[in-house]
Amino acid sequence: MEPVYRLTISCPDAVGIVAKVSQFLAQYNGTITEANHHADLNSGWFFMRNEIKADSIPFDLNTFCDAFNPIAQSLNMKWQITDSRIKPKVILMVSKQNHCLADLLNRWHNGELDCEICAVISNHNDLEEQVNWYGLHFHHVPVDPKNKQPHFDEVSKLIDQYQAQTIVLARYMQILPETVCKKYEGQIINIHHSFLPSFVGAKPYHQAYERGVKLIGATCHYVTEQLDAGPIIDQDVARISHRDTVEEMVRLGKDVERSVLARGLRWHLQDRVIVHGNKTIVFS
Amino acid sequence: MEPVYRLTISCPDAVGIVAKVSQFLAQYNGTITEANHHADLNSGWFFMRNEIKADSIPFDLNTFCDAFNPIAQSLNMKWQITDSRIKPKVILMVSKQNHCLADLLNRWHNGELDCEICAVISNHNDLEEQVNWYGLHFHHVPVDPKNKQPHFDEVSKLIDQYQAQTIVLARYMQILPETVCKKYEGQIINIHHSFLPSFVGAKPYHQAYERGVKLIGATCHYVTEQLDAGPIIDQDVARISHRDTVEEMVRLGKDVERSVLARGLRWHLQDRVIVHGNKTIVFS
Amino acid sequence: MEPVYRLTISCPDAVGIVAKVSQFLAQYNGTITEANHHADLNSGWFFMRNEIKADSIPFDLNTFCDAFNPIAQSLNMKWQITDSRIKPKVILMVSKQNHCLADLLNRWHNGELDCEICAVISNHNDLEEQVNWYGLHFHHVPVDPKNKQPHFDEVSKLIDQYQAQTIVLARYMQILPETVCKKYEGQIINIHHSFLPSFVGAKPYHQAYERGVKLIGATCHYVTEQLDAGPIIDQDVARISHRDTVEEMVRLGKDVERSVLARGLRWHLQDRVIVHGNKTIVFS
Amino acid sequence: MEPVYRLTISCPDAVGIVAKVSQFLAQYNGTITEANHHADLNSGWFFMRNEIKADSIPFDLNTFCDAFNPIAQSLNMKWQITDSRIKPKVILMVSKQNHCLADLLNRWHNGELDCEICAVISNHNDLEEQVNWYGLHFHHVPVDPKNKQPHFDEVSKLIDQYQAQTIVLARYMQILPETVCKKYEGQIINIHHSFLPSFVGAKPYHQAYERGVKLIGATCHYVTEQLDAGPIIDQDVARISHRDTVEEMVRLGKDVERSVLARGLRWHLQDRVIVHGNKTIVFS
Repeated sequence: MEPVYRLTISCPDAVGIVAKVSQFLAQYNGTITEANHHADLNSGWFFMRNEIKADSIPFDLNTFCDAFNPIAQSLNMKWQITDSRIKPKVILMVSKQNHCLADLLNRWHNGELDCEICAVISNHNDLEEQVNWYGLHFHHVPVDPKNKQPHFDEVSKLIDQYQAQTIVLARYMQILPETVCKKYEGQIINIHHSFLPSFVGAKPYHQAYERGVKLIGATCHYVTEQLDAGPIIDQDVARISHRDTVEEMVRLGKDVERSVLARGLRWHLQDRVIVHGNKTIVFS
Repeated sequence: MEPVYRLTISCPDAVGIVAKVSQFLAQYNGTITEANHHADLNSGWFFMRNEIKADSIPFDLNTFCDAFNPIAQSLNMKWQITDSRIKPKVILMVSKQNHCLADLLNRWHNGELDCEICAVISNHNDLEEQVNWYGLHFHHVPVDPKNKQPHFDEVSKLIDQYQAQTIVLARYMQILPETVCKKYEGQIINIHHSFLPSFVGAKPYHQAYERGVKLIGATCHYVTEQLDAGPIIDQDVARISHRDTVEEMVRLGKDVERSVLARGLRWHLQDRVIVHGNKTIVFS
Repeated sequence: MEPVYRLTISCPDAVGIVAKVSQFLAQYNGTITEANHHADLNSGWFFMRNEIKADSIPFDLNTFCDAFNPIAQSLNMKWQITDSRIKPKVILMVSKQNHCLADLLNRWHNGELDCEICAVISNHNDLEEQVNWYGLHFHHVPVDPKNKQPHFDEVSKLIDQYQAQTIVLARYMQILPETVCKKYEGQIINIHHSFLPSFVGAKPYHQAYERGVKLIGATCHYVTEQLDAGPIIDQDVARISHRDTVEEMVRLGKDVERSVLARGLRWHLQDRVIVHGNKTIVFS
Repeated sequence: MEPVYRLTISCPDAVGIVAKVSQFLAQYNGTITEANHHADLNSGWFFMRNEIKADSIPFDLNTFCDAFNPIAQSLNMKWQITDSRIKPKVILMVSKQNHCLADLLNRWHNGELDCEICAVISNHNDLEEQVNWYGLHFHHVPVDPKNKQPHFDEVSKLIDQYQAQTIVLARYMQILPETVCKKYEGQIINIHHSFLPSFVGAKPYHQAYERGVKLIGATCHYVTEQLDAGPIIDQDVARISHRDTVEEMVRLGKDVERSVLARGLRWHLQDRVIVHGNKTIVFS
């Protein structure tokens, strides 16, 4: 993969945005390898993502920012540019179940997830060995059910220490306190084992079993202060039948959780997801 | 299609049920063309459906019933047998939108839905011509928003008059009163334009748009007194993206509604659906 | 739907294409409501589609063409612009089966297919009444199995007479001669009832049954001189099992055929499909 | 999971088979926890699978066989019974890619695949460490491209030594010689990275890219002497678009390969797959 810059833009819609941005890139001979636009006619906002061959542009990111800033300001842009060679730092958080963790580690190991995994944090130590096999740090931070705050303080400290940009709740099973949700807004990705907004909260497969649904699902979303209500990145479902017990639903659901989380995380790491209000634009 | 008898059984699970039933069929030389069993280990109930070549059995349904009754009683069975040559009577109820209606009529016309459509009832007359083209009765029964009861009384009268066994709400858009739901329990099939239990009630596509889901769905279920909470027969979904407005979601959802309703109704008409509590066993 | 212009472009990739095109649109105050780009790094080609609010541009299509031509020529573009208010003329061709026809007519009737259906042509007259109900012309052009040429001559004459731009083979079941395929290259859309390239030619469901596949499919593609080998617009599949006979596969396959054809045709009518070599770029 | 016996039967269809089998089970008080039947009306064959609570039957497998044999012989049955407590022995064969291997090992480790993995055989040693982490034997058996026979001899020797009943080609990338295919007929499961019968042989994703298909697939099948032509156990697909290069197709395809192979193998290990001619009956 040739190195690319990823330029992501949100701004109020107006005539000439694409012209100005592409003009800017063309004037420095920037080769666009992928471009996506979206005009949300309801809210009057415009979203844009460009991948530009890093070698085709004659300056580094800082100079780019300085040069681009006047355009960005004139159009009231929220924007960022990243370099695919600088891998985002990621922390994975898990509990005892390893299906999502094993999947993410295998994909990362095979080069499917372009990031640096700084560490895995867990409230149990069941998965320590598996993490160590990949040469990664494992932090066992137990939870005292009577006083969970020390756990969250320690987690927060570790995130800051590692300077992690993205935190993945890969079946972490604890509800993060509001302060943590707020501090890392837009940075925490969770996989919820239901097709949200159905079956919020605990034991969604049990809820699904009780309701007698014919499809089960999983939802990858950004964590916000309201439980399981943050912006959805991706969802998928699997067919079940009357023959499936809760245990079978759990087993079948794992496959959906795995693939939805991996897909959502990959898009996030490639700056393909833009949050707007409580929704996402996903330039997949 | 050769004529078949369809024998459907629910009873408390016990050793020897299949043996007794299949023994009974074998002793009269009955050729089983399809058989399905399900033992629900949680509730301790057993469900069974057999298709038997009508010609292979030496007696008619009444004699069959007399002969089978002792077995049924000894095992506390809820059971029924139907003859595929006697087509169930169906009434379709619609409002103004015709996507489900047109699909059902075309399938029925092509022999995919094995039933007699007695009539179509609507609170509007927009679809009258289309119904008439198929040579079917159309009843325009307007709804007075200030007093809906006369409408429901007339509907109920028509159902009884036609002796309809199945009533299909093919985007009928009115909420049936409790009395009607109760009177025709297990006989009314609705298509709800969401992936239940998400987005119960009015304007589910608008609700889905607001929540920012990445899949939209439809649910075919039996109508009970509690709105959109009856036993689910089938569900399906379609993928959407940030580009899709509510209008696009409505358009894409129509395809899901159509196919889910047609599938659910077909199974119901072939006695493939057994209701147990608030769930269904579907021997598809 | 507000009227839009649809500008579609294919050209050798180069730096600055987007800049020039969007600059051109911006200078005339053109509001872009949807934009899609694709750079095929393998072949070195670039593809682009813009939807522009018709009212936002101060001139008509002819003036637009004159003004845009210098840019187009300088970049060696193959390009076209269409006005959503001028509905493309379409001829549907069918045989005896009506599942695709009924679906297309219903969608057209409900405003989902933005075109003018000039006529339906068939080698049988089974579907005449249904077509007439929609107030459309029906041409029964029989095929003499020993000498099919007169049939194809008449079909070709009708297409020219109606000045149809798009011909849809909605389960037409005849193999068009090379001359016809060539004459209307890129204009004829076929639905083949298999997941191409599997099961080319006659009786694909029988072939699928023999091979014991677990999914059946349908393929919507442009017709070329080589049977079932033209550029694919869309495909989809449905799950089957050992229980499904050929008859069941035919029934289940109809749903896939219907939706794949409707989707492909819709994209084609909105200029979302660009043919490049034997492949398609689909800006869906 | 309570221990069960799995009784699997194929025989010419006749009246009374189910009666005789279920009568037999009932007379020894056997509790059936799952039952599936299939009558193939085309070929006149009947297939049956019963799961029976092991504790509910008063004798062991040998006594069961002796007692059941007269019925089996009178109905010309091909049949077998297995005990879920005796785990089938499996050998995995791989090359360099680990996506299927890592997935199978993780599932096995988590108890999703009820078998004993005796060993992993590979023509490369890239995956040795990963296999060792699970405490499993790894055999590196290199292939000499000029003389492959010694490799296959060694593989065959290892299979026999371990008394493996099932051999899984989890992206093994070598074509087994006819003698090996024949010797282990019905025992070798392969994952082919295309939707068979499309794209048989080498580099199916490249073939798919060339043809411009809109879905890619994977097929899990029994290996026979004819390349990629054996009985299909399961298939699935994933949607792609014009944006996807061969590399992207390879990446997306891995997910399909993984899940199709895991599903097919699980069904095989639970005696849910019956081969009949070149097709499978899958009681999933």
